[in-house]
This record gives sequence, C-alpha cells and structure tokens, in this order.
Amino acid sequence: MIVVMSPSSTKEETKKVEHKLLALGFKTHPIYGEVKTVIGAIGDKRMLDTQLITTMNGVEKIVPIMKPYKLAGKELKKDKTIIEIGDVRIGGEEIVLMAGPCAVEDEEAFYETARKVKAAGAKILRGGAFKPRTSPYAFQGLEEEGLHMLDRARNETGLLIVTEVVDTRDVETVAKYSDIVQIGARNMQNFRLLKEAGAANKPVLLKRGLSATIEEWLMAAEYVISTGNPNIILCERGIRTFETATRNTIDISAIPVVKELSHLPIIADPSHATGTWKYVNALSKAAVAAGADGLLIEVHNEPEKALCDGPQSLKPKKFAELVEELKIVAAAVQRKI
Amino acid sequence: MIVVMSPSSTKEETKKVEHKLLALGFKTHPIYGEVKTVIGAIGDKRMLDTQLITTMNGVEKIVPIMKPYKLAGKELKKDKTIIEIGDVRIGGEEIVLMAGPCAVEDEEAFYETARKVKAAGAKILRGGAFKPRTSPYAFQGLEEEGLHMLDRARNETGLLIVTEVVDTRDVETVAKYSDIVQIGARNMQNFRLLKEAGAANKPVLLKRGLSATIEEWLMAAEYVISTGNPNIILCERGIRTFETATRNTIDISAIPVVKELSHLPIIADPSHATGTWKYVNALSKAAVAAGADGLLIEVHNEPEKALCDGPQSLKPKKFAELVEELKIVAAAVQRKI
Amino acid sequence: MIVVMSPSSTKEETKKVEHKLLALGFKTHPIYGEVKTVIGAIGDKRMLDTQLITTMNGVEKIVPIMKPYKLAGKELKKDKTIIEIGDVRIGGEEIVLMAGPCAVEDEEAFYETARKVKAAGAKILRGGAFKPRTSPYAFQGLEEEGLHMLDRARNETGLLIVTEVVDTRDVETVAKYSDIVQIGARNMQNFRLLKEAGAANKPVLLKRGLSATIEEWLMAAEYVISTGNPNIILCERGIRTFETATRNTIDISAIPVVKELSHLPIIADPSHATGTWKYVNALSKAAVAAGADGLLIEVHNEPEKALCDGPQSLKPKKFAELVEELKIVAAAVQRKI
Amino acid sequence: MIVVMSPSSTKEETKKVEHKLLALGFKTHPIYGEVKTVIGAIGDKRMLDTQLITTMNGVEKIVPIMKPYKLAGKELKKDKTIIEIGDVRIGGEEIVLMAGPCAVEDEEAFYETARKVKAAGAKILRGGAFKPRTSPYAFQGLEEEGLHMLDRARNETGLLIVTEVVDTRDVETVAKYSDIVQIGARNMQNFRLLKEAGAANKPVLLKRGLSATIEEWLMAAEYVISTGNPNIILCERGIRTFETATRNTIDISAIPVVKELSHLPIIADPSHATGTWKYVNALSKAAVAAGADGLLIEVHNEPEKALCDGPQSLKPKKFAELVEELKIVAAAVQRKI
Repeated sequence: MIVVMSPSSTKEETKKVEHKLLALGFKTHPIYGEVKTVIGAIGDKRMLDTQLITTMNGVEKIVPIMKPYKLAGKELKKDKTIIEIGDVRIGGEEIVLMAGPCAVEDEEAFYETARKVKAAGAKILRGGAFKPRTSPYAFQGLEEEGLHMLDRARNETGLLIVTEVVDTRDVETVAKYSDIVQIGARNMQNFRLLKEAGAANKPVLLKRGLSATIEEWLMAAEYVISTGNPNIILCERGIRTFETATRNTIDISAIPVVKELSHLPIIADPSHATGTWKYVNALSKAAVAAGADGLLIEVHNEPEKALCDGPQSLKPKKFAELVEELKIVAAAVQRKI
Repeated sequence: MIVVMSPSSTKEETKKVEHKLLALGFKTHPIYGEVKTVIGAIGDKRMLDTQLITTMNGVEKIVPIMKPYKLAGKELKKDKTIIEIGDVRIGGEEIVLMAGPCAVEDEEAFYETARKVKAAGAKILRGGAFKPRTSPYAFQGLEEEGLHMLDRARNETGLLIVTEVVDTRDVETVAKYSDIVQIGARNMQNFRLLKEAGAANKPVLLKRGLSATIEEWLMAAEYVISTGNPNIILCERGIRTFETATRNTIDISAIPVVKELSHLPIIADPSHATGTWKYVNALSKAAVAAGADGLLIEVHNEPEKALCDGPQSLKPKKFAELVEELKIVAAAVQRKI
Repeated sequence: MIVVMSPSSTKEETKKVEHKLLALGFKTHPIYGEVKTVIGAIGDKRMLDTQLITTMNGVEKIVPIMKPYKLAGKELKKDKTIIEIGDVRIGGEEIVLMAGPCAVEDEEAFYETARKVKAAGAKILRGGAFKPRTSPYAFQGLEEEGLHMLDRARNETGLLIVTEVVDTRDVETVAKYSDIVQIGARNMQNFRLLKEAGAANKPVLLKRGLSATIEEWLMAAEYVISTGNPNIILCERGIRTFETATRNTIDISAIPVVKELSHLPIIADPSHATGTWKYVNALSKAAVAAGADGLLIEVHNEPEKALCDGPQSLKPKKFAELVEELKIVAAAVQRKI
Repeated sequence: MIVVMSPSSTKEETKKVEHKLLALGFKTHPIYGEVKTVIGAIGDKRMLDTQLITTMNGVEKIVPIMKPYKLAGKELKKDKTIIEIGDVRIGGEEIVLMAGPCAVEDEEAFYETARKVKAAGAKILRGGAFKPRTSPYAFQGLEEEGLHMLDRARNETGLLIVTEVVDTRDVETVAKYSDIVQIGARNMQNFRLLKEAGAANKPVLLKRGLSATIEEWLMAAEYVISTGNPNIILCERGIRTFETATRNTIDISAIPVVKELSHLPIIADPSHATGTWKYVNALSKAAVAAGADGLLIEVHNEPEKALCDGPQSLKPKKFAELVEELKIVAAAVQRKI
C-alpha cells in the first residue's frame, strides 16, 4: 500500500509512520516529492487494520494497491470455478437457466409451473419459502411448508432447487431441502448468515446488494469461501440508482468486470432488476451476450394471482419462447443453453 | 389508490379491473379522460397485495395515495413519541448524546473513555460487541465478553448502554445486557432481526440503511412496532451516493422529513456518515440545528490503537469541546443538552 | 392528473382547488376517501404550471397521469422514426456502427483510423473537434481545424461525420461540416444549445446526461423536436452511480424502456460508459442483444498517443474483430450489421 | 503520482514505463512488491495527459497523489478568499443572505418582494431572467426585460443583484446588469460558459452540478479562476440520489469538506435542494451551523402565482421570521447575520 503524507506533515511524523510500518512487518520505501511525501509499504495489507496508520499525525490517506479479497480473486486461483451439482455444471460452456415463481404459494400451481419451466429448458427451480418483504403486512412465505413443496417438486420433475434463507436459525433446514442456498440482496452484508450458509456445505447463490460495489460483493463472497466453501454463484440483480423507470438498474457491466476480477461464475436476474416482465426478454439476451453463466427468471403460471412480485413474472409460454430465442443468442457468443 | 389504465386498454378491461376492486372490498370511482382512464379505489391498500391488480390486462400502473406504514406514521398517533429510560428522555426537549468507541476492545481504555464521555455530558454509552465488518479478516468484536464489559461500564458510570445485535440468535443476550438494542445499517432490512429485536422489549435504535429511502426506513420501523414495541429511535447515518469525499453522504434533510412523516424520535450519527473525525464537529452542529433529537458520536481514548473505525473517532478532549459548542447551538434552536 | 389533498385539509380548501382547476380548463372528479380526498383533473397537464395548484392550501401533492413529453413519445406518433442520411438508415433493420477517436488530433493518424473503421464496417465516423474536458489544463480540441480534418476524412472515405458541439455560437459551423450534430452528456440540459442544434436542421445525436432520468432525456429530445427537427438519435452512455469499477454504469435497460416510450432510435456508447476498452466487447454485444439501433465506439490507431480518452479506445484490429462478432449477435436478434 | 503495474506485467514493460516517465520530466522511484510493482513518479501530473501512461502495456492503473486543481485549492493560497462587492463581504465573518423569487415575472410583485427581503435582512436579490426549464413548454424567463427589472429593483432597494446566465451569447449583457453572475447546476460543466463568465470580470456564483463530485466542482471553479477571475462563490444545492422525499439531497457535509480543500466561500441553497418550502427553515439553520458563508433562499410574494418553483418559495413573512431565527444560530457558531 501507499501511505500519502499531508503537505503540512513534518519529517519526524514521516519517520514515525515508517517505524510503525516496519514494526508491523512491512518494508518501506519513502519517496520525497516537492509537495508531498509518500511511503510505499510492501506487505499484505489485508491482515492489517489500516487505521493503525491513517490515524497517525501527518497521514493524509492510504492508497491500497492490492485487492482486499484473496480467495474470491484470481491471484491464487486463475482457472474458472465450475460448480457441479448432479448433471448440472454452472460456470462451464452451458448457460444454466433457473426459473420459477417468486414465492411458493399454491401447491398445484407451483408444480404446474415447475413442469413447464422444466419442459422449456430450465435446469433449476426457484421458489421462495422464506420471503424478505418490505412491508410487515405482506405475505412472508409458507416457510417450512414451502420447503416441503419444493422438495416434492424436485422429486417430481428432477429439477434442482434454489431457495432463499433469511435467518441463521433456518440455514440447516433450508440447506437440507435445497440444492443451492440463496442469500438475497438485502442480506448480502448479513455476515453471520454468510458464514452459516457457507458452513452448510451447499453451493451458495449470492445476490448483489442494492448498493453494494463489486468489491464489497466479492468481499461477501470471501466471507463464504473463508468458511471452506468455494461453491459460490454470484447473481447481479440490479443496483439502486436515481432512475425510476425500472425498479433497479441492472449493471450489465458487472458481468465482464466480475469475470476479470474473480474465478466465480456470475448469473443475472433480470426479473428483480427491472420489476417488469416486459423488459425481461431484452435484458436476458443482453446478459447472455455479455457473458453471464446463467439466468434467474421469475415464471408464474398465473402472475395475476401471485402473492409476491407478479408484475415481473413471465407466463410459462413467454418463458418457453424466450428460451428458444436465448439459445440463438447463446450460440452467437459460443455458449449453449 | 389510483389505478391508471393504459391508453390502449379496452372498456372491458376497465370493467374487469373495477369488478376485481369491488370484490376486494374497495369502492371504485372511474374517471374517463381523453387519453387515459383512471379508477379511484377507496379502501386500505396496505392490506392488499397490489399485484393482484397491476398484472391485470390493460393496467398501466397503480398510484398509492396512502402511506404504506401505519403505526410509524402520524395518522394514528399525532403526538411525538418520547422514550423514557431511567432518567433519560429521548424525543423531548433535551438532545441526548450517545458516545463511545466503535468496538469494545481493551477493557481499561474502554472504561477510561466511558468516564470521559460521561463527564463531558453524554447520557448513553455506545460500544460494539458484535461488529459487522466488510472483511472476514477484520476484527469482529469481543462478542459476549464485550457485553460484560459494557455491563461493568454501566455499573461504574451510570451511563445507559446501546449496542448492536447482528444475529437473531443473539437478541436475547444483547437485550439482557443493554438498555437500547441497535440494528445497524446493513441489517435495516433483515426483517427477522427486526422482529426479534422488537419482541425483546427494549427500545430499538434503528439505523437507516445505506440505500434505504425514508419510506423503506419507516417500513422497517413498522416491522418493529408491529411486534408491539413502539420505542424506536431512528438514526440517520449517511446514504450511499456517487460522492467519495466523505464515506457516505449524510442526509440532513431526512431530519425534518421524518419529523413531518413520523412521531418517532430521530438522531444522527455524523461519525459513520463522514468516516472522518474532522467533519464530525460541523455535522453535529448541523444535525442539532436541523432538529435532531440526539447524536451518536464515536469517541475513543486512543483512536490510533482502535481496531475499528479509528479515523472517525474523536478524542475525549475534542468531544468535550464539541459538547460545549453544541450546548450553544441547541439553545439557539430552543433545545438543551 | 390527480390532486391529492392532505388528510388535514378542509372541505373549503378542496372546493377552492376544484374551482381553480375548472378555471384553468380542467374537468374535475373529486373522490372522497375515508382519510384523504383526491381530485381527478382531466385535461392536458403539459400546458399547466402545476405549482399553481401545489401551492394552494390543503394540497398534499399532484400525481401526473400523462407523460410530460408529447412529440418524443408514442402517443402522437406510433411508428418508429427512421433517420435517413444518404445511404444510411438509423432506426431500421440495420444496426449502424459509428466509430473513431475521441478527439481529432494528428491528421495522418486520423485518416488512417477512418480508413480502417470504414473497412471494418462502420458507416459513420466520430471525432471531436470541440472537447468538453473536466480540467482546463487538458487538451480542448483542435476546434475549426478539427472540423476541416473531419470534412476531408469524409471526402476521402465516404463515411458520414458525427461531431460534438459545445457552444451555441459554434452550432452553425459544426452543422456545416457534419452530418450529425452531437450534444454531449454534460450539455443534455443546456437548453439553449438544444434549441440551436435543433434549428440547424441536421440530425442530432443526443447523449443521456450523467444523472438524467429517461424522462428528462426524452424532455431534452422534446426541446429539439419542438424546434421542428424530428431527427434525433438517443445515445445511452452510462449514468453516474456509486460503483467505481467502471467509469459510469451503462443502463442497458434504458434500451427496451426507451423503445417502449418513444419512437426515436437509440444507440449505446460502451466506450464512454465503461472508460475501459476491455469491457467494450461484452457491452457492445449486450447493447445489440437488448435492441440498440447502433453503437458509438472509440477507435484509435495508437491509443497510447491519444490526447483524450486513450484507455477506452479499441485499436482498429480489435474493432474489426468485434464487428465480425457483432454481426453474429445482430443476426441472433433478427437484425443485421 | 503512483503507477501501479499489473501482477502479470514484465520487467521490460516496467522499464518502458519508467523511461516514458523520465522522458516526460518526472523523477521515478520504482518499488518492487511481492505481487505488484509500483512506480512513484514525482512531478506535476496536472500538466500531463495521464493516458499516455495508462495505455502502456502492463500498466494496471494510475493513482494521483496531488489534487487536480491548483488555483481553487489551498496549496497556493492558504487564506480564505473574501469577495467584496460594495459594502457586502462574502466569505468573511458575516453570513450573507441572498433572497428573491426563482424567476422575475410580474414587475410590481417583484419590487414588493425585493423591498421585503431587504427589510428582513437580505443583502443580495436573486431573480432569474433566463430560466433553464426541464420542459420546453414551461416559462423560460423574461430575458432582457427581466434584466431591466432587476436593475430597477437594485436602484430602488440598494440590494445587489445575482442572476443566472445560460448562454455564452448572453454573458456580456447579464454581467452588465448584475453584480454576481450565476452559473446554474445544469451548466456546471458547460466549460465554454464558465470561461466566458470568468472573463466577464464579475464575481461568479457557481452552483454544484446535480451529479458533480466536490472535486469536479472545484475543477469547474478552476476553469473560472484560470481566466484570471478569482471571485467565485460555490453554492451547494443538492445532489441527485435515490431518495425521492426531497427533490435532491442537500450535501451538508460538502460545506466542511470544501472549507478544508479550498479557500473559496461556500453558500447553500436549501430551496432548490429540497423543492419544498417546509424544509427550508431546518436546512437553512443546518447550513449555517455547518459553516456556510451565505444562503440563497427563494422568496415570493405570492408563491401560488409563481410561474416557476412556487412550492419551494417562502412568503416574505416566513422569510423574515427565518432570518431572526438564523441570527441566533449564526451567533451560536461565532458568525453574524
């Protein structure tokens, strides 16, 4: 890292900072400019609480040179992570489709949707049993009963199951019934939940927080990996901006950026990002063209009866048409669905 | 609420929407414009999952007229909530100062800081035992040992204690040792934690999320109140914007806005909002001048030894000077410290 | 529009608002709810300065029902606008490529780049003669000399020319030398420049402002169209968000949203949006897959010698490869390049 | 500045960068870390187009150490700039109040407002003759006729005049009739206008752009100062964020930050920042408490008749009451009004 001394700092202050850095195990290289002095400090900043330095007299700021994440980055692991669950490989040549309703509600309708997304080409079934809702008066999910319905849908269709966990106390149960444990956007920095989910030994689908930078997102992944669980699927689902025409602003550039910085697979969720089923088609194609390893799409047999996020759900027929179109786009970028 | 039909919708679609609204218990008032038809629907939208309507054919959008929160707003409770804990009243004439280090670390240094903030005029001692840190490699707090230290600091100084809880499994323990349970910004939409914290029957200090609108913040408060616990202190601590000169952008206008929309007391945390002790003085005064009911300020005996957020901590001497200056500003707006 | 009266408003205040609306030529439909009264007002809000109403006693807010733009929207013109300049049609089946350096600098290098982007498949040559630079000490463009070079490049290659105008006093000159006049992001709400550019009777390429909503962007287009010039090409070039991994965040969802709201063609500029040539390939494909009618891409023969925005420029060879890849993606979404 | 080489760069690439830096007049200090090499480069980066370096093979990024502005910063001028116009001193002990309507409209009403804000304690009269309006159908100002009315109001009341210029072609005329030339938020990066306004030799009131960082704002000031005109008043007027409860989010922390970075006076405009007169009182006090050197407040004799921004205008009586309250807050922070 680089320690920048303020223009008004004294030589003695610079010396003290240097001594401190040496005492902390860094090698130091001071550079004396005309206006400012900077000290190059060689060593692993990640292990250092940097305020030990930034609070010293005369220090203007610290400029990190190394990335703060280690296991989620490419420095130690250059090859792409491919997550294999049964026959499904996430992060490989194939683009994996995950589809289903926002929340598991009516049993028959859910199975019906499951069968249809399977027929259309989805490999993984989504459906929320525990729902984080903005309003305490909104439907909060069927909880454990919902998990049982997910389980039966898996048995019936052969689809894998991804479902969200929102409480550390439910991790074990959710992990038992699901093939992939989802951490939602609002819980991306619920660090205890990240650790528990990591320890549950199922692949983790980690949604990007509404106002999380890509670096913070990778740090959240680092929390999971540091429990010993390297099987993380990152999911871009829109960030909060000033624009109100869509519910959130999907950051498609996050796809190539993450691919440059990390070995983890990354998928996109155009349904939550836009909040409107009308835009799901265009943005699904955009995500695939930009290099996404998968898509998470809301599909509901009767969106008008959905207790949660109906307006962003595709009907199974529209989803099936989209899949056909996506196959062509995938082929155009040397991938397959 | 108002249902706006799309310009291309048919009369039949409008009729169907009206019938649905009537079936849901609303009274309807259609207005036929030259281009668009809108339907006024009278009734309590809060109990309705609005997508039952927005997904119907021909519907362009729904415009809510009522606020989505009920208990946190002023409709049902017009007088300001004043929270009394022992001798301390939050939300009354007095502006309450909460001060202390980011995290409880070294025992002697902590007691020393506690004694000094008490002497300077603070009524409540802050100190984190469970710390939500961006990096898994950073200090995560002393956990239960930290709570014991908080307890002893209370016994020794007579200060009340506010400390954060980050996991539903710890709520009972944290509530046992603290006078106010803090929900941090990253957990503002950790709805399970909100419910547990509400049920613990201690006043809750609810920080605004980094990218939470004021409405979402009040909805988070609604979660807590709906458990039967009306004692909530809202805390503005900066929102995420594009500006990088400060760690976050403190939204001082949230203070008068919340006072207009809600009966709950609101305080400000200039330390976390700016990330730099240098700006804490000016922003503390601004918050008080804007009408804040209290301040949460980081104070550390030796910021350069802090394992967490040292750069934003005031030394006790600076804090004592600030308190003297704040007394004059408080008096200038008919409040007192 | 809908006028929402505050819960504490009196019947008399509601009556006064109704009278005012009637006097302004609206038809009114009051709806009396249990808590609030709203007044539906039928008429064209666009012609009304709404504060005549919002400042009246008892009014809580106004909810517009109609879009504020008229000529840029689809209400009056449902079919897509196709802009024909010579052989080039923008907004039709073909996706039009515009390429070239950020600024026109060295003459020979510029012609060389022009020939190469032409050979690769570009139809329009970009190059700045007047450059809006953040620093007064940075290269500001060759100004009129640059325009002459653009002119010669057109003559030599047959490419059309798009170049930016930054001052009302230069509009006539810039329009004389160019086929498309560009309004940059920083000038999207320089309303005088919009009017002058509109009046110059050349097609206008209107970049989205860094912090402009799609509605404000369409209102800027409305300024141009209201001068009698309907030939506007909208260009998404990234919005300002909290994310710093890319220079701006390209809002790919703006493409389907604009296509839903407006008849105007929309293109994307992945070079300015990301600030890094490495991400241009992925985002060009994403924009095409999402339905963009064209791309504006920075290409420089020797990016390392560019006086402006070198880091985001592709070398001609990379551009040529990208065009080949884009042809396949375009075909996958039933378009062609 | 610091040049950070990528982990995969070769020794030869590092050598080439060093040679280039030396050729450009820098002194270089390479530091070889375990993973990355960085090169400290001593010299004035402001004069360098940094992409000459960032586009070289093996370079990961450049970290600037010096601020990009020179004349607007404190390095060359440590004492605060005080702008004297007649008897009024901006940036001194006194907090200067600027007040008046958004736009000059009805003549008699304008003079009436002028007399009242003068009586209440304002020193400077604001009023727009040229109005940048989002809609081409909204009132655009009385233009030169408005300037004449401003002139007469000055003669009658003795108030100084501040008014906005929106077109380079009008700078001379506007400067002739006004004491302070205002650059609006939407034109903060209209660099031609900045230069013309600077050259007009009247003090310039420079509003912060809606999405401008403080650094970009100071760079805009640098444009003006670099014309030889050091008399700039910075005006914080709210930035664009995701929050919609207020029109913009006033960044009160910008006040202490600017005071730390620059010698220029800074004022605040709570009327435009919030868009609602109800919040002007609290935020005016907050700005004064945070150290603002002045306030720009919209006052209109009959807000309900205003053709522009009525909802954010105070009536003269409310303004007079606010001034009395502000005097006490100013005294509390050792300033006066």
